[in-house]
Amino acid sequence: MNETITIGSDALQQLKDMLLNRAFSKVAVLVDENTLVHCYPLVKPYLPEHHLIQIQSGEAHKTLQTCEYIWQRMTELNLDRWSVLVNLGGGVIGDMGGFCTALFKRGLYFVQVPTTMLAQVDASVGGKTGVDFHGLKNHIGVYKEPVAVFINPVFLQTLPQREIKSGYAEIIKHWLIADGEMFETQRHIGLFTENWDELIRHSVAIKSAVVEADPLEGGYRKVLNFGHTIGHAVESFLMDKPGRELLHGEAIAVGMLCEAYLSVKKELLSKESLDKIEIFLISVYEKVPLTEDEIQTISQFALQDKKNTGATINCTLLQRIGSAVYDQPITLPEIQEALRYYALL
Amino acid sequence: MNETITIGSDALQQLKDMLLNRAFSKVAVLVDENTLVHCYPLVKPYLPEHHLIQIQSGEAHKTLQTCEYIWQRMTELNLDRWSVLVNLGGGVIGDMGGFCTALFKRGLYFVQVPTTMLAQVDASVGGKTGVDFHGLKNHIGVYKEPVAVFINPVFLQTLPQREIKSGYAEIIKHWLIADGEMFETQRHIGLFTENWDELIRHSVAIKSAVVEADPLEGGYRKVLNFGHTIGHAVESFLMDKPGRELLHGEAIAVGMLCEAYLSVKKELLSKESLDKIEIFLISVYEKVPLTEDEIQTISQFALQDKKNTGATINCTLLQRIGSAVYDQPITLPEIQEALRYYALL
Repeated sequence: MNETITIGSDALQQLKDMLLNRAFSKVAVLVDENTLVHCYPLVKPYLPEHHLIQIQSGEAHKTLQTCEYIWQRMTELNLDRWSVLVNLGGGVIGDMGGFCTALFKRGLYFVQVPTTMLAQVDASVGGKTGVDFHGLKNHIGVYKEPVAVFINPVFLQTLPQREIKSGYAEIIKHWLIADGEMFETQRHIGLFTENWDELIRHSVAIKSAVVEADPLEGGYRKVLNFGHTIGHAVESFLMDKPGRELLHGEAIAVGMLCEAYLSVKKELLSKESLDKIEIFLISVYEKVPLTEDEIQTISQFALQDKKNTGATINCTLLQRIGSAVYDQPITLPEIQEALRYYALL
Repeated sequence: MNETITIGSDALQQLKDMLLNRAFSKVAVLVDENTLVHCYPLVKPYLPEHHLIQIQSGEAHKTLQTCEYIWQRMTELNLDRWSVLVNLGGGVIGDMGGFCTALFKRGLYFVQVPTTMLAQVDASVGGKTGVDFHGLKNHIGVYKEPVAVFINPVFLQTLPQREIKSGYAEIIKHWLIADGEMFETQRHIGLFTENWDELIRHSVAIKSAVVEADPLEGGYRKVLNFGHTIGHAVESFLMDKPGRELLHGEAIAVGMLCEAYLSVKKELLSKESLDKIEIFLISVYEKVPLTEDEIQTISQFALQDKKNTGATINCTLLQRIGSAVYDQPITLPEIQEALRYYALL
């Protein structure tokens, strides 16, 4: 596993040691109103002298406008190229904080301290940073690696069950694309596991191995996109529908089910495997109701996916539980068929 | 020299061949109202099917707001990661077009077709892209190399004399930091040269060699910043003073004179060399009048320079004509003293 990732209950001590050793010119911490209250008090004792930059929580604020505010604060604090930003929060804080440091004065340092399970198993690994643009997820961004990632399970105790489930979706995804045995064992245990530390460690190891093999997503890394072509479209569509917004993992659960269905349709995956995936996902995640009109609109969102080539929609599909194939062309009608299958479950 | 840079009258034919060979999914061309009229007609015959993205000319539009417009157009045109943007214009078009392609869907391709002398000898080489932020030059940016650079001297015929002089300042800078003999020969010829092609080729070669030795500006590349610590401060200060705005090279000429003065003060450069530089620069560039109050304000601008470490202002100075040293700490009072020296010339 990537040596810059520390997982465990001593992660904050390691953060402290690293900040001391590297002697950055200045330290700033990016928080939102939730992590300020629930997480910052746990981290503060391990930090040297530092400044706070506070933004509002939520995907709706993952925008260039929020970046402008962060850059304004970074300018006021006189951060230079030898300063470091500590991103304390979930995926939004991590992605946007990484993005802002990548661009400020053409790049200073950043550290990830992910506080949600989703960010711990997914967003903190892989160097993707970015913001949403006109409702399109991560439409504007760059690849930029953090100095280090510190994953402390203590933060999970501050999370509501819905957030745990959202992160769990990416854990399931990692089993489906890379470890069929783990899927087979864990699908009977589900959320009743007492081993979150181990599951996170295992998931981070899978993601790190994939990213190291293909850091800039030239090919193989696309296996990580399983569930994301349709999942992102569903997430984007519901993003501005009050009361119906999904957490990222909830949308990916819908996407994984739809794309597993397409894997069967394309004769890559067995019907029996689809049944297993379906039963498991439906047992964990609430069904998202979708009308026929909405299915039409959602399929249009998939056209803007970053992985597409021109008008062709590229999707990652399963060839068995534990193994994925990327760059599988799918059509708009197929996406609609898959969403219809899901809606009628 | 970097093999991706083509200089000469057949540069547009080479552009055509490259675009055909690479078979990009889509081609878009970024222009402003000036290059649309004066340069686009010269390039159009060499382009395959393409789309235009037009922005307003001038440093005042080198902002995130303009980027948002460009990203909106790129989204409407459905550009993907295998598309290319041809930047047809001066430094603003090149820097901002490169920046926009670096971030859109985490990166597509771009080509530089610089149309001003400044962009041909300076902005088109080195992979620096970015925009201004709250009056701070290139405050937000990334390093991103173009696919290729095509420099055709034909565009220089479309330029006013003031633009030629602005580009000439960077040519002079390249002599001062890397080729004392060339300075000695050329200072007697000045703007009366008939060999612009050769001068541009020579300048691009110097800059390319420096950049190749240190692409991310860890050290040696900083020699290229000679004249820029004080020059940028003067440029930023005058940017919003109607009727007093300077072209980049005009500001760098002021900066080079001030920083040559500081080189003597720091006992790095001989007084005789300063005299030569001073006589030459004053013969080419109009004096910029500066009051004592303005000198105080300008020196404050230098504090935000990207090359600084904390409160220390780092400057590149000359140790002789043809050789520079970087990371020389200078103080606010020293900057003021140098500007006062210039103002009293």
